[in-house]
Formats: sequence, structure tokens, C-alpha cells
Amino acid sequence: MRWARYEKDGIHYGIVEGDRVVEIDTSPFDTWSRTSRTHALDAVRLLIPVVPTTFYCVGFNYAAHAAAFNKSVQGIPTQPDVGYRANSALIAPGEAIVIPADSAGVQYEGELAVVIGKTGKHVSEAEALSLVLGYTIGNDVSERVWQASDATLWRAKNADTFKPMGPWIETEVDLPSLVTRVRVNGEQTTEFRTNEMVFGVATYISTISRYITLRPGDVIWMGTEGSSVNLQHGDVVEIEIDQIGTLRNPVVAERMIS
Amino acid sequence: MRWARYEKDGIHYGIVEGDRVVEIDTSPFDTWSRTSRTHALDAVRLLIPVVPTTFYCVGFNYAAHAAAFNKSVQGIPTQPDVGYRANSALIAPGEAIVIPADSAGVQYEGELAVVIGKTGKHVSEAEALSLVLGYTIGNDVSERVWQASDATLWRAKNADTFKPMGPWIETEVDLPSLVTRVRVNGEQTTEFRTNEMVFGVATYISTISRYITLRPGDVIWMGTEGSSVNLQHGDVVEIEIDQIGTLRNPVVAERMIS
Repeated sequence: MRWARYEKDGIHYGIVEGDRVVEIDTSPFDTWSRTSRTHALDAVRLLIPVVPTTFYCVGFNYAAHAAAFNKSVQGIPTQPDVGYRANSALIAPGEAIVIPADSAGVQYEGELAVVIGKTGKHVSEAEALSLVLGYTIGNDVSERVWQASDATLWRAKNADTFKPMGPWIETEVDLPSLVTRVRVNGEQTTEFRTNEMVFGVATYISTISRYITLRPGDVIWMGTEGSSVNLQHGDVVEIEIDQIGTLRNPVVAERMIS
Repeated sequence: MRWARYEKDGIHYGIVEGDRVVEIDTSPFDTWSRTSRTHALDAVRLLIPVVPTTFYCVGFNYAAHAAAFNKSVQGIPTQPDVGYRANSALIAPGEAIVIPADSAGVQYEGELAVVIGKTGKHVSEAEALSLVLGYTIGNDVSERVWQASDATLWRAKNADTFKPMGPWIETEVDLPSLVTRVRVNGEQTTEFRTNEMVFGVATYISTISRYITLRPGDVIWMGTEGSSVNLQHGDVVEIEIDQIGTLRNPVVAERMIS
């Protein structure tokens, strides 16, 4: 099942069926019912599929990416380490990633995004995936110069527009078979097996829940593999994860629009 | 003016006047009107005074605290560095701080919390304070062993119950004259001039807004001074900032209650 969140005479959740969306009365995090309202998908404006209750993001969770960026003694992490991103940076499918005026350049990072549907604390790895409502796609846009100087990555990872998420939440996913592909202006620049993580989805859910209650609407971005190219004004970046969909955003330079 | 958020036949905002609260129809972040409903303050359950839209927290923003904890070459920061905390960790006045079962001990950090009331981007230091709705109090509860091992401080600063905030938002504050006092079981353990920061409120608002749009409901915790003592099961910790109020929370050990 695919859950879209969209604007059409207000903000609603709906179930994507083919090229249409069937509006529901509440949200996938509540008891819900279908309504009689349906729309063509291209007649609604897709929004971020969830406003995260808490927005987690995992770093250095793929071998080659960890090797490229993590210069400290540990290299590839030996234990799951959890980070955060800011809701202020989220943008919807189709909205523009803005390169800040004083930036030397920003890069994409295609990531699997896990959407939590149930409350859990002290959850074992065996039961962890039962907390998941579904999966969507995140683009963890990053400014590499600031990434080297910001201890907390606040600008480097959380400047306005740096967190595209969407296009919807897919509940039926076979994690081991997923492949993530990134295209810039239609040309593929990155491809990796989505689930070949240093620590997987179940491990992270279990680890977080040892200290923190996971709640419906929490979102965990699972990190990226490989390295990226600098995005330019006028580019269009697409992150595709088969079985889920494609997250597409144009790129503009602040200095060209302000 | 003092804005309380409370539960009494639903969740409401109200204006604290003496020992009573006057209910309003919306929130201080909207156009609002007084209603005819008033309650005795001790007949309502105070909640966290705002659910942060984005929850910022500044580290190493006082000289002695920076010297005690920041062992790296830079010592006292030479530029404002912005961090985040997780909404999942917030608890209201009176709710219990829980020491996790496998923790070696947690400590308080008494902090001024700035509540943003207006939207702003590229805000100068001169106009920064015009974005502020008011001030409340945060207790940035910290687990010092984990603080040394968690790169992102996720457990160290964001385990469940580690972020008490309240008791309300005070809009009329003379920043330079504020004093923060912490008491454990009624005995004062820490006292510092609240506004003697390395980088002040206006500097942080201006700095953040250079890259990130500040929005109504955003909250910025401004850091703490000095060092703390370990809290024990059965303790009561109070953070008082004169002109604002007192944030009081009991402490319990998870291993004593589970």
C-alpha cells in the first residue's frame, strides 16, 4: 500500500492506486477509513509524506561512504551511532533544493527513510520491523565544506531545503532486494544495494529503543553509499528506490533567485 | 505576560495571572482571544509550554562549562555552533527524570530557553530579539559517560525524559539582569548570571537565520555554566531563573521502577 500526503482542498492522506489517490479521513497513524473522494495524482500537490515526530538520521552506514568521509581512527563504525536532522530543512517532491549564496557547492545523498507506525521501547531486533509503517526516500543534501567545520552539521546538513523527502510511504517492501539509483539530469551517477548497510534497519530500531521510545511518525534515514557529485543551478536530481518510487527535485542557486 | 500550556478538559494555552490561568481560544503563535474560562493554576496539569517546531540547543556557551568539558584544542568556542535536541525527550514540569538502568549517573544543566514567535531569515543581530515570543527554562539532563562516547550525543542528551522544559513562557524579561539558580533537594548547587554567554541570544538567532528560516514555535536552549552533581533516585531538581519561574522535576531510577 502507498500512503501519500498531499494538498488538495486542505491537507490529506490518501492511498495511491495506479495514477489516482483515494482520500482517507484521518492518517495512517490513526484508525482510518476511505472516503468517496479520489483525485488524479497529477492533480494534487504531494507534500512530505510525514512531518517527523522525531527525525533520526544515521551516518556512515555503508562501507565505501564511511571510508571516503570518516577520517578518524575508527573507519567503519563498530557500533550503531544515531544522529538527528531538523524538520525545518524538509521539502516535498518537486520543490527546489536551494544552494546557499555563500556555499562552495552541495551534494546529494540518496537514502532509505523508515517511517515508524507503532510505539515501542526496549524492542528486540527480532520484533523491530513490526514497528515500521513503511518506507520512503530521503535526499540528505550536504555541503561538504561546512561538513568539515560544523561540529553538529547544523548548516552542512540542515540549511533550508536540504532535506527533500518523498514521494510517498510504501508499506510492502522486500528490503534485501532494493536498489537505490541516483540520476542527475537523467544520467545515473550512483547505484547501490539499499540494504547492504553496516547496521540494518532492525538493528537501528532496536538500538534507539533501548533508550528512547519510538513513536508513530518518527522517521529514520538510513545513510548513503558511495560519493556524490556537486549539484549546479538548473540541475534536476532524482533518487529512485525500486518498489518505493522516485524523489525528484530541481536545484537552484540562491544567488540566482534573490 | 506568562503563557502556560496545560491540560484541563483538553489541551489549552492560557495567560497566567497570579495563581490563576485565563484560557485563550488558540495559541500565542496565532491570533488569539481570552475566553471566559479561568482555572486555579494548581487545578490544571502544566505541559511543556511549546512542542518545538525545531528544537535547537547550543553547547559550550559559557566560559567555565566550556573549560570543564571541551577538551579539544579550541577551548572556548570562537564561533557560534548550533546543535539539536529531540522532542522525544521532552517532559513537563513535575514529571520524573528517569535514570536509565545502565547509566552510571545523570547530571542537570540549567538553561535559558528562547521561544521564537515570528518567522525570520537573514535577520540581523539588531533585529533578532524582535523574533522572540518569550523565555522559558530547560534542564539539559546529560549522561556524562555516554557524552564521551556518543558522537552525536543521542543517548547522552536525548534519552527518554532527559529534556524537562517549563513551567511557562514569560514574555517580559530583562536579559542582562537574569540569574539562574539550581537546587537539588532544596539546596543550591549552581548559580550563574544567565546572560553572561560566550555568544548571546541575538547572535545565535542571527547566525541560525543566515541559513535556516526560524519559525513560530522554534525553541533554542542557550547552554549552561559551571559543572553539575550526579542526580540520585529520590532527588528533586529545581532550575530557577528569576523573572521567569522555577522548573521542578523529581528523579527516579529506571531500575527502581521497572
